[in-house]
Amino acid sequence: MSKCTGQINGRRISERIEELASISEPSDGVTRISFTKEFQAGQELVKKWMIESGMTVRIDNLNNMIGRYEGLNPIAPVLIIGSHLDTVIDGGRYDGVLGVISAIEIVTVLYENATRLEHPIEVIAFSDEEGVRFHTTFLGSKAVAGTFSEAMLELKDDAGISLAGVLQELGLQPHHYQTAAKRPKDVLGYLELHIEQGPTLETEALPCGIVSGIAGASRYSFKITGFAGHAGTVPVPLRQDALLGASELILEIERLTKQNAPIVATVGKLKVMPGACNVIPGEVVGTLDIRDTDTHRKNDVISSIFNAADEICERRNLTFHAELMLESAPTPCDDSIKAAIESAILANGIKPISLVSGAGHDAMEMANITKIGIIFVRCKKGISHNPEEFTSDKDMEIGAKVLLDTVIQLTVHDMN
Amino acid sequence: MSKCTGQINGRRISERIEELASISEPSDGVTRISFTKEFQAGQELVKKWMIESGMTVRIDNLNNMIGRYEGLNPIAPVLIIGSHLDTVIDGGRYDGVLGVISAIEIVTVLYENATRLEHPIEVIAFSDEEGVRFHTTFLGSKAVAGTFSEAMLELKDDAGISLAGVLQELGLQPHHYQTAAKRPKDVLGYLELHIEQGPTLETEALPCGIVSGIAGASRYSFKITGFAGHAGTVPVPLRQDALLGASELILEIERLTKQNAPIVATVGKLKVMPGACNVIPGEVVGTLDIRDTDTHRKNDVISSIFNAADEICERRNLTFHAELMLESAPTPCDDSIKAAIESAILANGIKPISLVSGAGHDAMEMANITKIGIIFVRCKKGISHNPEEFTSDKDMEIGAKVLLDTVIQLTVHDMN
Repeated sequence: MSKCTGQINGRRISERIEELASISEPSDGVTRISFTKEFQAGQELVKKWMIESGMTVRIDNLNNMIGRYEGLNPIAPVLIIGSHLDTVIDGGRYDGVLGVISAIEIVTVLYENATRLEHPIEVIAFSDEEGVRFHTTFLGSKAVAGTFSEAMLELKDDAGISLAGVLQELGLQPHHYQTAAKRPKDVLGYLELHIEQGPTLETEALPCGIVSGIAGASRYSFKITGFAGHAGTVPVPLRQDALLGASELILEIERLTKQNAPIVATVGKLKVMPGACNVIPGEVVGTLDIRDTDTHRKNDVISSIFNAADEICERRNLTFHAELMLESAPTPCDDSIKAAIESAILANGIKPISLVSGAGHDAMEMANITKIGIIFVRCKKGISHNPEEFTSDKDMEIGAKVLLDTVIQLTVHDMN
Repeated sequence: MSKCTGQINGRRISERIEELASISEPSDGVTRISFTKEFQAGQELVKKWMIESGMTVRIDNLNNMIGRYEGLNPIAPVLIIGSHLDTVIDGGRYDGVLGVISAIEIVTVLYENATRLEHPIEVIAFSDEEGVRFHTTFLGSKAVAGTFSEAMLELKDDAGISLAGVLQELGLQPHHYQTAAKRPKDVLGYLELHIEQGPTLETEALPCGIVSGIAGASRYSFKITGFAGHAGTVPVPLRQDALLGASELILEIERLTKQNAPIVATVGKLKVMPGACNVIPGEVVGTLDIRDTDTHRKNDVISSIFNAADEICERRNLTFHAELMLESAPTPCDDSIKAAIESAILANGIKPISLVSGAGHDAMEMANITKIGIIFVRCKKGISHNPEEFTSDKDMEIGAKVLLDTVIQLTVHDMN
């Protein structure tokens, strides 16, 4: 092994987080929407860091930026480490960005140590994960995973400009999106480091954890219909108050999810109509979002929720109607990669715990072509998509160390 | 008694209801907001009917229309029968209007029979009960009851025009509003016939009933604050979901009101924030409207509700805050007038029942200067403030008969 000239530099990571956070539309938090001039400015910075780390950099036709650090065997399958550079409106500093900066950091360390691994490493800064601009998530990773389709080029932003038009404006050739796709045989695996966006690691007082898989999600809209009436004149027993039915249902959803942990379910939208102080609610429309890695259990709980809704509404002289809006299958993480992450966590003196990811990540798309693994890093109170999103410098450093150790375990290496 | 040339004419009542309903802004239902050109057109029609019934008509400085039918003793205290001509936006045909038309109908019958009662009768078509335009109810009856104040003249409508300005535009002298006030010694009593706006008479299969009193009301706005979070990433036991707290509270309010019938309480507005499918509700704001004729019982139930809110929120790691927005005392109806209505109902072969009015009426203001009595008429499903508001021709006819018999009982009369 040659003399070690570098190591994970937590300060460098923090400084880069701050530097990228400063590239934003005017906003309370960070607003760097895909394909905007702010996004391009962020990419320029990432490109500079990649080049400084000994990577060759290219941009594919969906505007993903790929930094390649050659391996000892240049034709060996590539280990991809990635996350996204785009943010939501008024988002935080860490979501997505931390994964990109951590990936660059570990290549920097390898480069500073003049270390080549057996396999090439590609760091991908995906162009669009949040889906803010074209209302469709994962456009960047879909292109790399080969799940992007011609029709997506016709998606329009709120100004009516198509995705194809936006990409052409950037000098790209969107209709050649297939050139962005990786072949499975060319990929060793995909690793992603991401903030947890939940409170579990903080509650467990741990800086990072192993993601066991990404939950599948079902999203329904539902409507409970009763009968509006004057708040002063209808005796309580004669009321058909849709909000009372909804309240009972919402509590029943909580009870059923508690019984079936770690499933989660949320009624996030609820509109009460007509919505006047002195009128009994005649109609309530809401959304139910339910997520689990176990599709069978999820479907059982959904059945129980709908049975409860029917029972509640019949008893209360209301009607219930639900409609499926969205469904996604769960994505399990690869056992060998989970084992590598676990060893890396143990090697850093940390208790390894497994967490389900309830949020979607680029890894979901990458799972279509390769084995995936995800490392979660603690974030304050689980706050994300918010200017208050926060991860400590120390936790970011530990996360990058675990990522580096995982990468080393997954690749045959030789120190020169 | 002279030859009877007239009697309560149900058909005339129905036709007048239809004729007034046709005077509306373009709308699904009837929209005749106070002081608008539609309102003035409605008043013109009422004026014509009043004159045809032998009344002299004047308009006071708050734009109330008063038709006077002289008594045998012109200086005897006047019996006032009234209700309002204004509607809510997209309202029904009967609310308010039926009381005015029924009052004119009974004077018409007296006039057709060339009958004079001992006391003069004044039919008042109040100018503003609903409070749609200036967001303050009972402007018309407040003027007559002497509870109107100078400050109310400065109320502004949504176009920024003051009430004083609107009244001046109509050729009135708003600053002389005191001339509209009646002195208690000049008034024998106040009678109002109104649709029930609730389902009790329909449930009891009765065309009309005696109002025992108008419930007092308390209205609160409340806020439950939790912590917003990602719907996929926060385990259920770690959530601080404001909507779960609100749901529990809403059911507890129902339980407490059922235990304390006939009190009624309603959560009519509920806004869930941030209100996204995939975000745990971090804050819920709502309104609580609670009404009872028994102020002591109402205050006890309010205490119990707030205690329950505190307990629920503490257990769920939420905070609760409530603010009083409005409070009104209950208004009992006068025993002698209730007895007269009861006799009149019995005389019409109907089982007399007493009902609480949970809605406010002009009678509430009139109670400040005189004894009041209210007759409720059945309306379909209790629907009101809605284009579907409906009362049958038969019920309207019966209501007017009961009103006429009540008036006769309350006034010394002599048939000439």
